[in-house]
Amino acid sequence: MKKDKITIYDISKKLNISAATVSRALNNNPKISEKTRALVAKTATEMNYKQNRLAQALKNGRTNNVGIIVPYINRSFFSSIIRGIEEELNPNGYHVIICQSHEEEENEIQQLNTLLNTQIDGIFMSVSKTTQTTDHIRKALEENTPIVFFDRKLEFPGVSSVVLDDFKAGFIATEHLINEGCNRIAHLSGDINLEIYRNRFEGYKSALKEYNIAYDKNLVIQTSSKIESGIQAVTQLWELENKPDAIFSAGDYAALGAIQELKNRKIKIPEDVCVVGFSNEPFTKYMELPITSIDQTPQMMGKIAAQVFLEQVKGNQTISIEKKVVLAPELFIRESSNRKLLKFK
Amino acid sequence: MKKDKITIYDISKKLNISAATVSRALNNNPKISEKTRALVAKTATEMNYKQNRLAQALKNGRTNNVGIIVPYINRSFFSSIIRGIEEELNPNGYHVIICQSHEEEENEIQQLNTLLNTQIDGIFMSVSKTTQTTDHIRKALEENTPIVFFDRKLEFPGVSSVVLDDFKAGFIATEHLINEGCNRIAHLSGDINLEIYRNRFEGYKSALKEYNIAYDKNLVIQTSSKIESGIQAVTQLWELENKPDAIFSAGDYAALGAIQELKNRKIKIPEDVCVVGFSNEPFTKYMELPITSIDQTPQMMGKIAAQVFLEQVKGNQTISIEKKVVLAPELFIRESSNRKLLKFK
Repeated sequence: MKKDKITIYDISKKLNISAATVSRALNNNPKISEKTRALVAKTATEMNYKQNRLAQALKNGRTNNVGIIVPYINRSFFSSIIRGIEEELNPNGYHVIICQSHEEEENEIQQLNTLLNTQIDGIFMSVSKTTQTTDHIRKALEENTPIVFFDRKLEFPGVSSVVLDDFKAGFIATEHLINEGCNRIAHLSGDINLEIYRNRFEGYKSALKEYNIAYDKNLVIQTSSKIESGIQAVTQLWELENKPDAIFSAGDYAALGAIQELKNRKIKIPEDVCVVGFSNEPFTKYMELPITSIDQTPQMMGKIAAQVFLEQVKGNQTISIEKKVVLAPELFIRESSNRKLLKFK
Repeated sequence: MKKDKITIYDISKKLNISAATVSRALNNNPKISEKTRALVAKTATEMNYKQNRLAQALKNGRTNNVGIIVPYINRSFFSSIIRGIEEELNPNGYHVIICQSHEEEENEIQQLNTLLNTQIDGIFMSVSKTTQTTDHIRKALEENTPIVFFDRKLEFPGVSSVVLDDFKAGFIATEHLINEGCNRIAHLSGDINLEIYRNRFEGYKSALKEYNIAYDKNLVIQTSSKIESGIQAVTQLWELENKPDAIFSAGDYAALGAIQELKNRKIKIPEDVCVVGFSNEPFTKYMELPITSIDQTPQMMGKIAAQVFLEQVKGNQTISIEKKVVLAPELFIRESSNRKLLKFK
């Protein structure tokens, strides 16, 4: 489909000089005489040669493009992080291209290779849930492409990351439910193999311990980030003899499913059961019964990840800077868990 | 930051042959003798030279990457289209990279240039609301990069597009409200400068005419795709002496805002006022009062756009294929406009 483009080889042939000389002349390399540079420039113009910015990038090693890999672009958390990265990088002359892994390791590997092949100057990524190997990341690092992890990180020496304090988030969500008078607090945990979910779970257990509430493993259900998973969890929990009086879900979609199933069973929220979600997805506040949720300050996470990258590429230092940034979570208390509000009704 | 990589120039210098010869030898060009090809291959291996897939792409003109430009990645409509494109193109060996314009012409121009500079094989795009000029698109077409428009298109000879029948969508949404017994139907129109919104508006007017309902321009409010805009529209409409008994919004977020404000005013939905949105955003069905909406079959739109592209790049035909695909909308009737459901309560 591509038109035949004039290349440096055509110019080289016409002038009977080497392609390397043409290339150096076009890039104003001082090793090439002023006369030759002028001749090459004139010939290039006559032949309608257009210097390919990418070809140039292949030489000077910079494209001013960065790549972002996220599991899904349509989760508010990830799209807000991307927004944060763009807001910080665009004024610095960088352009952002985005790929999604759909939580599949195979996709993640391919997307990373795609980005490396488009010669990006850096990669921001949040690791897919199914990723088991790290060769693709090692490869990027070996090519000296800076990587900044956000939210879901892997540990590599010299590689920076920006994450949420998920332990604290789990703690304050659970503590809030205890303060609302709940003591049979169920936890919809997400995939415990992932560090972020494990930390939320640990925060939950730690809060129970702090307030002398016995941990009951029957109250912990591994969920996915789907609505159906929350429905199933409530179905399972309500088969228990001693039923929960609160649900702390490590994801908003599972929390939404749980609420749908609780309503289905005519269980009153927050009177009988308080519910807290995680991520502060926009729909949590649109609901007629707005859902309490943990905000992960994703836009801030994106901005800081971008700042870490900019610091890393600034100048031409050969030392690597490793920054581990941990952000504080914020609890947005809404009707789904706020019994105090009821008193004023 | 990049390590000094071995280039064809280094090999050329070592062997004292031209870079062009090295390049041709590495690409197994039959013009180069078997002996030279073997020597270059051996030297390249010894010098740890890695052929850059992108540099290769610069020669053969194919990268197997395609770019998508959307206004926002975090609208379900656009992320579903992207999903559809990926599902169709991934099995064909293509990788998808995504950029967002944030509805800003300047961003759109920059993102298109970024994609062209990464040597993508094709571009899928939905034009930003603020785009006034078309030079950036002309430039891509002049470079013979295939473009497929989806949803929001521009007219260029030979350029394909996949869009929704927005006129029909506007018609069936309005007709549904008429069938529910409404005859003071307000329209939250979106930005009438955009073809898609103009067509929805024309469909609305056409349905009114068909059912002999007088068109009243006071019932039409230009809205943005924000919740606040729907709140403002209801505030303005309820200042009218003769108030609406239905709202057809050309976007789901404005419909959501309208519903919030109607509830705020203790107006019953659907008894007093029926509401229909547009796009079938996931939240429309999560609500306690699920919102009737037009589904634009975005995943299908993405799949068909991808098929149109594949047809276009298949083989090496120099003729251009122009396809104009128009998809049929589907109305999902839910509680916000379904008075018949009330009878069974």
